[in-house]
Amino acid sequence: MQREVLDGAKGMVRDAIIQKFDIKIMLSSSNTIRIADFGCSVGPNTFIAMQHVAQALKEKYLYQVKYSTNNIPEFQIFFNDHVTNDFNTLFRSLPIDRSYYAFGVPGSFHGRLFPSRSIHFAHCSCAIHWLSKCPEELLDEKSPAWNKGLIHYMGTSNVEVLNAYVAQFEKDMDMFFNARAEEIVEGGMMVLVTPFESYTRLFKFFGSSLMDLVNEGKLDASLVDSFNLPMYFPSPEDMTKVVEKNGCFSIERMELTYPKSKLVDEADAKTLMINLRAVLEGLIINHFGSEIAEETCARTILKSDEISTWMKANYEKSCQLFVALKRK
Amino acid sequence: MQREVLDGAKGMVRDAIIQKFDIKIMLSSSNTIRIADFGCSVGPNTFIAMQHVAQALKEKYLYQVKYSTNNIPEFQIFFNDHVTNDFNTLFRSLPIDRSYYAFGVPGSFHGRLFPSRSIHFAHCSCAIHWLSKCPEELLDEKSPAWNKGLIHYMGTSNVEVLNAYVAQFEKDMDMFFNARAEEIVEGGMMVLVTPFESYTRLFKFFGSSLMDLVNEGKLDASLVDSFNLPMYFPSPEDMTKVVEKNGCFSIERMELTYPKSKLVDEADAKTLMINLRAVLEGLIINHFGSEIAEETCARTILKSDEISTWMKANYEKSCQLFVALKRK
Repeated sequence: MQREVLDGAKGMVRDAIIQKFDIKIMLSSSNTIRIADFGCSVGPNTFIAMQHVAQALKEKYLYQVKYSTNNIPEFQIFFNDHVTNDFNTLFRSLPIDRSYYAFGVPGSFHGRLFPSRSIHFAHCSCAIHWLSKCPEELLDEKSPAWNKGLIHYMGTSNVEVLNAYVAQFEKDMDMFFNARAEEIVEGGMMVLVTPFESYTRLFKFFGSSLMDLVNEGKLDASLVDSFNLPMYFPSPEDMTKVVEKNGCFSIERMELTYPKSKLVDEADAKTLMINLRAVLEGLIINHFGSEIAEETCARTILKSDEISTWMKANYEKSCQLFVALKRK
Repeated sequence: MQREVLDGAKGMVRDAIIQKFDIKIMLSSSNTIRIADFGCSVGPNTFIAMQHVAQALKEKYLYQVKYSTNNIPEFQIFFNDHVTNDFNTLFRSLPIDRSYYAFGVPGSFHGRLFPSRSIHFAHCSCAIHWLSKCPEELLDEKSPAWNKGLIHYMGTSNVEVLNAYVAQFEKDMDMFFNARAEEIVEGGMMVLVTPFESYTRLFKFFGSSLMDLVNEGKLDASLVDSFNLPMYFPSPEDMTKVVEKNGCFSIERMELTYPKSKLVDEADAKTLMINLRAVLEGLIINHFGSEIAEETCARTILKSDEISTWMKANYEKSCQLFVALKRK
């Protein structure tokens, strides 16, 4: 799924670099281009993405600078993820023939990770939709945003639940942009790619499996009430709002794109649910324990005919959001 | 043992920075000081060492620069070790209250790891004595350097064996210095700390345990002949020679230091052998398998009375080599 998002964004990342990135100015104080991937996970998607970025930067360099110097720039690529990420696997999977110096950067991208004005190009794919935490109101019985019987804002008719998610997203993005604004050099760029109205809506099927267990008396309802997925999928309007509120970046391009593949038959649905299971399983185990998690995931995958029907009906809506920003 | 080496060098690292490091020049092009620890392992020694280095640099900064700017420098610390090092443990042990940005750098320090002229201060403690490989002549029955019945140059009377080790050390250090010469800025410094005539001589007791197994018919002699520890402990003369041959660094200080603690009774000997076992066990398992490794280590630890006697007789010789270099 992440690979599909990546492939969808490939051309737009290249365009952003070729059309908007001034590599001559970036190289004016040193001969090194520093690139960061925020939320890199363990590979191989991050290596593919960084290879694309470095390739496009080299192209731009040859186009823009080649006549003024023979000094080919060096590339320094920083792979960031939470301190609990498996960096051992990441490092052992680094391409042997890479043409860049590779570094691991442990820590939350909601805070500072780099010295001031040290990054020229930032990339973040399938990561900013992860909130730093769940909005607390969702768990509060007395709050109008209490999210009873659901595990996410998708599927709710309660606008207060959605508002709580939006508020948390805005807080998180403010921290994210404040940190990046310090770290990215003037004229430096940042590309964000994030799922929007997409397969992530399928999370609701995990929620309904949990509720099945409640209805069968196998799970306490309060456990479902106290569980909410810490993810928000921003719309173009959400994204515009947080970028403008921060004020340090200009929007160079923002676009919704639609995947090329059509995953709509029952077998596809099953594969997709297995992928989503991999994303959600850790969260579900932490909250419900491994037995309930196992049962929930198994039941959800059994719903593949229902899911397939839902996907056929909703396919056209599936899309991802691409944003290219420039540090003012 | 590494902690003792570290503590022994602490004052000298500080002196090198206070007396020789020109932080004003280092900060002339940016406000970030970049420090690298080569062969960092998993901590906590690397964190203690890097804390000392950053502290001394801040002291020098306040002394040298404070009246000219209010812009306190930022510190970027790079932790390097082989790609097989446990970076997950390293990252999860990073001090919470650190005052620097932390990065992991996977790869051999015998090759390039950083862009040109990007490091201001390099540190390497208890690491350069690890050779990139064993000298091949040691395994060749027809070579005058065939190291029959021994596992290291210590204990041999064959000068060809020693020469083979020295030649490999010189090759490795040439690669090491060539890479660092590109990476360290002009005027930048590098501190190397390495065991010399020290407890490492105790390796010979592991060798004699292996030979005991051969003599009892439990181990094939050719397996011992084909095993050699890939370590060389340079003397001040060795070090001077490799630095001068490379030609890119000036020697600012070189000194043999003697440990303060006196580990000489039988209990100390046992503790020390357990530490050495941790260093050697992986190598021994790889070559001999885990059963022989277990037996060898257990037998060696049983020799603690013999080892204690040896240590009392040789204590005065135990020392480590400290070198402070400056990039010309």
